[in-house]
Amino acid sequence: MEAAHQDVSDRRLLTDRIRYYGDDVAAVVAEDEVSAQRALKAIRVEYEEYEPLLTPEAAMAPGARAVHDECPDNILRHMDLRTPMPPESGFQSVEDVLACDSYFQFEGRYATQMVQHCHIEPAVSYAYMEGGRIVVVSSTQIPHIVRRVCGQALGIPWGDIRVIKPYIGGGFGNKQEVLYEPLNAFLTRAVGGRCVKLELTREEVFENTRSRHAISFDVKAAVDKDGTIMARWCRAVSTQGSYASHGNAIVANAITAFRQLYPDRLGHHSEAYTVYTNLPAPGAMRGYGIPQANFAVECMMDDMALKFGLDPYRFRLQNLMPLGYVDPFNGITCHSTGLRECMEKGRAFIHWDELREKYENQTGPVRRGVGMAVFSYKTGVWPISLETASARMVLNQDGSVQLQLGATEIGQGGDTVFTQMAAESIGFPSARVHIVSFQDTDTAPFDTGAYASRQTYVTGMAIKQTGEAFKRKLLDYASELLERPAEELDVRDGEIVDAGTGALVLTLHDLAQEAFYSFRHSVHIAAETTHQCRDNTFAFGCCFAEVEVDVPLGKVKVLRIVNVHDSGRLINPQLAEAQVHGGMSMGLGYALSEEMKFDGKGRLLNGNLLDYKLPTAMDHPELTALFVETEDPSAPFGNKALGEPPAIPVAPAVRNALLHATGVAVNTLPLSPQKLVEAFARAGLLS
Amino acid sequence: MEAAHQDVSDRRLLTDRIRYYGDDVAAVVAEDEVSAQRALKAIRVEYEEYEPLLTPEAAMAPGARAVHDECPDNILRHMDLRTPMPPESGFQSVEDVLACDSYFQFEGRYATQMVQHCHIEPAVSYAYMEGGRIVVVSSTQIPHIVRRVCGQALGIPWGDIRVIKPYIGGGFGNKQEVLYEPLNAFLTRAVGGRCVKLELTREEVFENTRSRHAISFDVKAAVDKDGTIMARWCRAVSTQGSYASHGNAIVANAITAFRQLYPDRLGHHSEAYTVYTNLPAPGAMRGYGIPQANFAVECMMDDMALKFGLDPYRFRLQNLMPLGYVDPFNGITCHSTGLRECMEKGRAFIHWDELREKYENQTGPVRRGVGMAVFSYKTGVWPISLETASARMVLNQDGSVQLQLGATEIGQGGDTVFTQMAAESIGFPSARVHIVSFQDTDTAPFDTGAYASRQTYVTGMAIKQTGEAFKRKLLDYASELLERPAEELDVRDGEIVDAGTGALVLTLHDLAQEAFYSFRHSVHIAAETTHQCRDNTFAFGCCFAEVEVDVPLGKVKVLRIVNVHDSGRLINPQLAEAQVHGGMSMGLGYALSEEMKFDGKGRLLNGNLLDYKLPTAMDHPELTALFVETEDPSAPFGNKALGEPPAIPVAPAVRNALLHATGVAVNTLPLSPQKLVEAFARAGLLS
Repeated sequence: MEAAHQDVSDRRLLTDRIRYYGDDVAAVVAEDEVSAQRALKAIRVEYEEYEPLLTPEAAMAPGARAVHDECPDNILRHMDLRTPMPPESGFQSVEDVLACDSYFQFEGRYATQMVQHCHIEPAVSYAYMEGGRIVVVSSTQIPHIVRRVCGQALGIPWGDIRVIKPYIGGGFGNKQEVLYEPLNAFLTRAVGGRCVKLELTREEVFENTRSRHAISFDVKAAVDKDGTIMARWCRAVSTQGSYASHGNAIVANAITAFRQLYPDRLGHHSEAYTVYTNLPAPGAMRGYGIPQANFAVECMMDDMALKFGLDPYRFRLQNLMPLGYVDPFNGITCHSTGLRECMEKGRAFIHWDELREKYENQTGPVRRGVGMAVFSYKTGVWPISLETASARMVLNQDGSVQLQLGATEIGQGGDTVFTQMAAESIGFPSARVHIVSFQDTDTAPFDTGAYASRQTYVTGMAIKQTGEAFKRKLLDYASELLERPAEELDVRDGEIVDAGTGALVLTLHDLAQEAFYSFRHSVHIAAETTHQCRDNTFAFGCCFAEVEVDVPLGKVKVLRIVNVHDSGRLINPQLAEAQVHGGMSMGLGYALSEEMKFDGKGRLLNGNLLDYKLPTAMDHPELTALFVETEDPSAPFGNKALGEPPAIPVAPAVRNALLHATGVAVNTLPLSPQKLVEAFARAGLLS
Repeated sequence: MEAAHQDVSDRRLLTDRIRYYGDDVAAVVAEDEVSAQRALKAIRVEYEEYEPLLTPEAAMAPGARAVHDECPDNILRHMDLRTPMPPESGFQSVEDVLACDSYFQFEGRYATQMVQHCHIEPAVSYAYMEGGRIVVVSSTQIPHIVRRVCGQALGIPWGDIRVIKPYIGGGFGNKQEVLYEPLNAFLTRAVGGRCVKLELTREEVFENTRSRHAISFDVKAAVDKDGTIMARWCRAVSTQGSYASHGNAIVANAITAFRQLYPDRLGHHSEAYTVYTNLPAPGAMRGYGIPQANFAVECMMDDMALKFGLDPYRFRLQNLMPLGYVDPFNGITCHSTGLRECMEKGRAFIHWDELREKYENQTGPVRRGVGMAVFSYKTGVWPISLETASARMVLNQDGSVQLQLGATEIGQGGDTVFTQMAAESIGFPSARVHIVSFQDTDTAPFDTGAYASRQTYVTGMAIKQTGEAFKRKLLDYASELLERPAEELDVRDGEIVDAGTGALVLTLHDLAQEAFYSFRHSVHIAAETTHQCRDNTFAFGCCFAEVEVDVPLGKVKVLRIVNVHDSGRLINPQLAEAQVHGGMSMGLGYALSEEMKFDGKGRLLNGNLLDYKLPTAMDHPELTALFVETEDPSAPFGNKALGEPPAIPVAPAVRNALLHATGVAVNTLPLSPQKLVEAFARAGLLS
């Protein structure tokens, strides 16, 4: 494994150093909850209190106490990336461009808040021992990684651990992290292999699992008078909290996406800091840094358009990542793009031109506006990290097939889509593909799991190539039975047909019966292959929103909203639509109401679903999901990322609609009434 | 599948025709046992009573009512097999030889009783629905066959059924039959997929599952004056009970083994009848007809030796199946034999020569004797039925391997032995092989299961060839990493070594880490192969017993007993010894005390572990298990059948010891006090 991309191992199971309010100090194993509660009360802990560091600024201040002794300045990592300047440009650096009078110059600051995933099922796992090995059952997105981390945490061979992932109630990235599985694994060994289970309360999920990083972006841009972005600089500071979790990777992803969506004509310079604080540790969450970056990028686009007198729609169009774009650092290439068509669809849906004009120069307490945001999102983690997935297919006696994967269903419909992919690859109807819906690391092929919108792209290719190998084995066996060359045969609708005429020549049922029970040649037809994915591709999309703003109340009401996505070919349009609806809902909460709030001691004030303002069905407008289907040439079935993208563009679109409605640029999330009233007052809207 | 060897499908889930006392008439599904009991009481059944047919003689009598209308004469099957007479012999038929004055002529009749397996865990299974499919969890020896039979019984695609076999508490062949799994599967569909479980009581296990067939053997033999067996005839009648279960296969196996152990110089003629009666249906039980046949064969040998003045030990030696013997009907070949050495070991252990002489001509109420019996037993079911098995091996990240099989552990130690086999095949230490100890038909490779002492032979070869394929893949990957030809490398003690010098060149841990996580070439190394076994081989062994007979009490006490086995190479000597101990115990119960007894209505009188006289630890002498290890050339590791054989020779050895002690030939089992007292009285020993 590549050391540079490994998570920082700064979390021990239980220590005597408390780094945030709510940090683990001790574990009690008891027969039942009542006994456990009693035992907990019997534990006396003496705390030596330090001044908590609740912001990156405080943590980076000279003399601040180190959250981890290994990191005296609390800066987990600092990155500084400059694209090379074109020699013919005459500029030495991005800074030179940003100081050049010939261009429009822009500066700004945007910041996002800490929010929580709020998956329905809390984090829960249990462990027990069987035959000297530890069995861990977990609500996880990443069973094979749980196995590795438990092995590493306990210092035992990974093969001595078996991880089982049943159906789970959502994850959104929070279950992409190994949380309490190693503790349970450790404790079951301590109690002679008896089952040790830990199910977090909702409050504990908020405090003791992960969240989305608050990231601030200081930005500068130089824009040519014709609207071409010449150069940008950004400085992103990510509030890491008290443990590294995914470490610097999230802010690194953020500044990368910041760079990619609108490739600067001359150069780009970005810096990023990941800073320890005494807050609960954020980690992976749907979008992995991009909702934060996209908020900055897309607010900035509207703010620049307003400042420089550009049309925000055309300004975007003019600077969009083109087909064939290659990222200068990671080489990720734009193999396909339907973003322009997405923008056209969204613009038509929202009546952009009409309403942009209509809502200019409003007065009065209730005003309306329309806003938009676009985004790009890569598919999977290559080449930043390894992408590898295996698939296994085994013929059943009735001519159906078992599909075994290490990739995981986490409520996103993965199993359905994998089933369709397998069916298409083999030439079967979907009903004849039986997917194994749980993962057991003792039997499931290896796959790193559900994250980074990777599975349909990476696992999808493993399914496709395994399906093709499986089909070849079916045809070889059919060829043997029928004494005809395999090339003359094909599998269509789940039967062996003449490749030329399409006429049925042998049912799969008969082939399977013969393969299993033949006295002449019995073979249990199976195929297994690994796909190491060495490519990546950009998914795209946009959001258009129409809002009504009650200025005195500081209340934003979303009247209409549409997300339009280019996720390549849609494998299952219904699931795709549902995925977009969910992401839009998450985006609306991010835009308007969600925020984890802490007091001066770093105590979480609203770590429950009553005080934490997750939008309910009543808070939602009608959510419209539209698609532009491209056929991505690098993908197994033309498909691209869709799991995470829907959450990305909603917040900046709503914020830009608010800007359109009121002329007031609010640069931090969420757009809460308190904040808006203050902003409107500052802007003189409340007299 | 070959129709000729299929079981007869005469059993429906629930019908209105009752064929034995205790037959199923209705099923109740309830929330709990109390409700179920109440509901059962509310069911009123009216029976029209017929005269029960409790013996084959009654069932075959003219005018007897058909147990199944499809079989009017109640003879499920009649076989008649004659080996061709050598033309140079001058005899036309076995009957001619048996009428020839030049030979010693012998006639006799031997009969065995019905006994039960008495596995610790009763028959238990449950079924529920998940995603439209039926999941069956069963205490079974044959999960993949349960899947097939449930599919056939319900008339649904087999792929729509998933069978899971957890650890089970013994089977001895009773769980080689699909018992109540289809009923549970049917009922869960009827109750909307809720879990339906049926756990039999011990009484129900006796009455409603299988047992060992009572078989009678009428025999004739012609023996040359020098002690050579020239020809034999036997007529075996098997008491089938009310359903076919394994049908005729068991008595067919019995007459086949009858023929094989002492190949007749001139010819052999055997007949077999399988006859329906109104008794619970017997089925497969450890030995599958051979304990019955061996009782007849080996009693007959001693009776002939006594009658013709031959030494029973030398008489056997002289007529034993030779190395290279080929069965005239099924072609099964004696690839290896250590039977002579087994006999020598047993004879030395029991002090045969000394005690045979010492115990001649005893008088008085308490007498001692020594007896012996030898046997042969084939390994697996080829060529009578298909033999096919697959194995799958998958590398773990720590350089250990997952071994996945459809073959089942049923308490015999299969998993341990499979682990050793895999380790040997790959070049790993056993501790680095992790076997999946349960079978789930959704993920486990196909294997027909645990029966016919087949798994170490048939599955063993699948493991061996898969291990070799897996090892080749390891070496290929090592070769790629090390840039050395694979032929220069080997896997020894779980590491990659220089094939020439044995020096370590790469740890498997490092190889695995690279294979999983390599940016250059990530592959999840796995191998899966099917082995279709097209061979068979004979295991051999013998039992020597010394008994003390209390003539007035009719009580036989076994003083010393030894089984000596040629099961080829022993994969695990400790498990082998334990297997023999268990079989000897089963054989002692068969010899002395066990018998299912019925009243005149066919009502089982002793269907529980109080009244059914299973021997306890207190009833056992010290059990000695010895081995002669041969290296069978047809076997994956030189190994041959061992699961069933130990139960075979005990009863005739004890019976022959009784004959030696008293001169009284008791020709039916068990050798119960009542029966012995009557026999001794008839023989004038009790005056």
